[in-house]
Amino acid sequence: MPTNTSTPALSREASTPLAKQLAARYAERIQQRLLLPGQRLPSVRECARHHNVSPYTVVAAYDQLLAQGLLEARKQRGFFVRESMPTPARTPINAAPVRHTPVDASALIRGMFQADAKRAPGLGTLPAEWLDLPMIHTAMRKVLSEGDASAQLALHYGEPAGDARLRVALAQRLSDIGLNAAPEQIVTTVGATHALDLLTRSLLQPGDAVLVDDPGWAIEFARLSQAGMRLLPVPRGADGPDLAVMAQLVAQHAPKLYVTVSVLHNPTGNSLSLANAYQLLRMAEQGNFLIVEDDTYAFLAPTHMPRLSALDGLRRTVYVSGFSKILTPAWRVGYVAANSERIARLTELKLISTLTTSPVPERAVAHCLEKGLLRRHAERVMSHLDAARQRSLRLAVSAGCQAVTPAAGLFGWIDTGMDTERLAQRMMDQNWLIAPGALFSPTRRASTLMRINFATSQDAQFWKLLAQFRRDKSGRH
Amino acid sequence: MPTNTSTPALSREASTPLAKQLAARYAERIQQRLLLPGQRLPSVRECARHHNVSPYTVVAAYDQLLAQGLLEARKQRGFFVRESMPTPARTPINAAPVRHTPVDASALIRGMFQADAKRAPGLGTLPAEWLDLPMIHTAMRKVLSEGDASAQLALHYGEPAGDARLRVALAQRLSDIGLNAAPEQIVTTVGATHALDLLTRSLLQPGDAVLVDDPGWAIEFARLSQAGMRLLPVPRGADGPDLAVMAQLVAQHAPKLYVTVSVLHNPTGNSLSLANAYQLLRMAEQGNFLIVEDDTYAFLAPTHMPRLSALDGLRRTVYVSGFSKILTPAWRVGYVAANSERIARLTELKLISTLTTSPVPERAVAHCLEKGLLRRHAERVMSHLDAARQRSLRLAVSAGCQAVTPAAGLFGWIDTGMDTERLAQRMMDQNWLIAPGALFSPTRRASTLMRINFATSQDAQFWKLLAQFRRDKSGRH
Repeated sequence: MPTNTSTPALSREASTPLAKQLAARYAERIQQRLLLPGQRLPSVRECARHHNVSPYTVVAAYDQLLAQGLLEARKQRGFFVRESMPTPARTPINAAPVRHTPVDASALIRGMFQADAKRAPGLGTLPAEWLDLPMIHTAMRKVLSEGDASAQLALHYGEPAGDARLRVALAQRLSDIGLNAAPEQIVTTVGATHALDLLTRSLLQPGDAVLVDDPGWAIEFARLSQAGMRLLPVPRGADGPDLAVMAQLVAQHAPKLYVTVSVLHNPTGNSLSLANAYQLLRMAEQGNFLIVEDDTYAFLAPTHMPRLSALDGLRRTVYVSGFSKILTPAWRVGYVAANSERIARLTELKLISTLTTSPVPERAVAHCLEKGLLRRHAERVMSHLDAARQRSLRLAVSAGCQAVTPAAGLFGWIDTGMDTERLAQRMMDQNWLIAPGALFSPTRRASTLMRINFATSQDAQFWKLLAQFRRDKSGRH
Repeated sequence: MPTNTSTPALSREASTPLAKQLAARYAERIQQRLLLPGQRLPSVRECARHHNVSPYTVVAAYDQLLAQGLLEARKQRGFFVRESMPTPARTPINAAPVRHTPVDASALIRGMFQADAKRAPGLGTLPAEWLDLPMIHTAMRKVLSEGDASAQLALHYGEPAGDARLRVALAQRLSDIGLNAAPEQIVTTVGATHALDLLTRSLLQPGDAVLVDDPGWAIEFARLSQAGMRLLPVPRGADGPDLAVMAQLVAQHAPKLYVTVSVLHNPTGNSLSLANAYQLLRMAEQGNFLIVEDDTYAFLAPTHMPRLSALDGLRRTVYVSGFSKILTPAWRVGYVAANSERIARLTELKLISTLTTSPVPERAVAHCLEKGLLRRHAERVMSHLDAARQRSLRLAVSAGCQAVTPAAGLFGWIDTGMDTERLAQRMMDQNWLIAPGALFSPTRRASTLMRINFATSQDAQFWKLLAQFRRDKSGRH
């Protein structure tokens, strides 16, 4: 299991003093913005009772945090998280383009991707136990033992566009989902995130307006904002984006691009209907904007689900996918399919910003695709997910929660009936990691929603604790 | 040997018609900007004689190029490369900040990094035969066979800052060159190029002025220009940058940054003297700019050579290095060492732009460092390079060329006495790849200089051909 950066229960056996353990816990929570600037900390007495330590321990811990500049003391009012950065504005949706600081997102990522899967209903990937280690190791060993081909691969820069054998295998895979792209129309990247980053840099200029899904993926918001783009959030409905809102935003702000997950959208699990996809493409045509289709969860969905890129034939669309959510997050293999002109520009940018990607894991992915190993693995995962969804949702309902969207794919979008940012803090006290709704909002709007990972939300203990918090809700702080 | 994208001799046995082969050769040369926009192609008769084909074949080839939009015919004057992009300005050095298009550099990279090392005196890396394949394969296999540790590595995202074991090994390595940096002050990247790219994005704003070495590395110029920076070329002397010119540029343009290779500079092979380093750091202090020290050739130099980052203690300096020039270019492992605040921002940017780098090759590099394998390999390479330098330089001198700088490291900076852009074209006709001086000039100034790779410039045939071209020089076009 990975080293867990979320806060463990305070330990009396540990060599670290209790006060230091407590300070470290709060420091981390502040860095992860689970405690926001301006927010009041529990009183010394409350905190002591809650953690079952003496008030002196709490005072010592708060002192350390004051010294670190993370807290400020306000006379007769208590201890507050220091206002070192402005509190994110809680502007109503669609009021205006929103700028977003990247701080939240990367803190989230650190927590979610390094957590102990057993205690992380908020996890962003399949748990390690669900991956096929023998397949992964065998594929890599094969790449190392193919004689001249292995030497060639191990001793040279990869091709600028990415391993040719992988690109042939990817073209085949894309034809399975109805997308006709030649190997020459594909360029490999360091995972899908790098693909989206290269596209941002290749297709956009700072100041450009970009349509994004709301809710959507925090890293996407953070990256676009960091690159100086203006975000235009579009409410995501059951069959795709809210086209009426989108039409208004297009008229007002002339966006250059719409970035969207069309199949098994994160966090709602919704997929685009064919009708919505068609209307959307017409709007892109009329409004003269491009669509980047992020198909990160491609292998968790049946191949027949409609993709914008397949429908449009990569004219106004660019297709992005990767293997972190099905094969392993460790290899960092992603790719872009696009028309030839865009691929040429992208390959150019890839070259001057990273030279090439490593051909070794790329060839290993090619092996898994060519032999049908990945397809069979994906089928097994999908069937396990079916069972996990049923169990997780049953537990959620019995804890008084309800699913906001029909269950599909890896993630569920769940209404807990209580503020999930506060819930996340309390859960962290008990060493559970959840993904509160605010983290999927482009405006970081607080809500009663949370995203669960069906694979890691099957522990009855977690839901029992949540039910208990719900009962406590009307009680003390 | 890698697939060779440089032009092979026309083949009468090949299934591709001669005209198509010829057209492909010119197309590539145009794309690589070895034939520049506005440049005249040889007459049909000249071309036919040179390639030993019929004039009809040449006409057919030129026709294909016209159809592809690469050439234009001017009445009674002949065929010219189409002026689709503006010819790079040949402004005198230091006249003003220079903008540079990335086209040239990536074309160069494609050629130089994918060439057949046996016919590439212009190659940018050690030839594959000089690398230690058993060490590379053994290290990778070890990473795959360490039980739980292997599973942990293979199934999870890497740590955001990079593999902890590698960062510990790197901190140790840096102390060998006099640089004290804790593992927490190091972040790993997809090779040194990615490190430089992240630093550009993290430290600079579009429009900022940046000091660069002249001559220097084309990819660096291209990346900075692509990101909207203004380049300020500083002549590179035997003991470092020309500090008088630099002082003037600092006063006029208030640059934010100086990017430099201080040890075994590419292409000259020069290294910074201690005196120059000290003056440079004082100028950076007074002029309030940062220095990014690119130590890509670290392992080809004795550890005692002065590094700016070691002298300065990472206050005004940021240190970048990688393993492509000593271990293998295939693994794509590089890193940055900097002060804690800069590392925090860099890790943030790495996260939102690529999530993490692959921990698998990082652990393999750690293994090579920990066991002293890389150090011993580097010692062997350095001793082979000593012999290669002697042989290459002897051949160069016998061909009428001379070295402009004292020979050291991997590259030699050689005066051929003839325009090396034209020479590159003629050499390409004979399937030899060279690196003309213009490619290392921020203004792409033509010159009689070229960069040779000592390891791949030991073939007497190449120098004999060059001597022949020198004799022909005054003759026919």
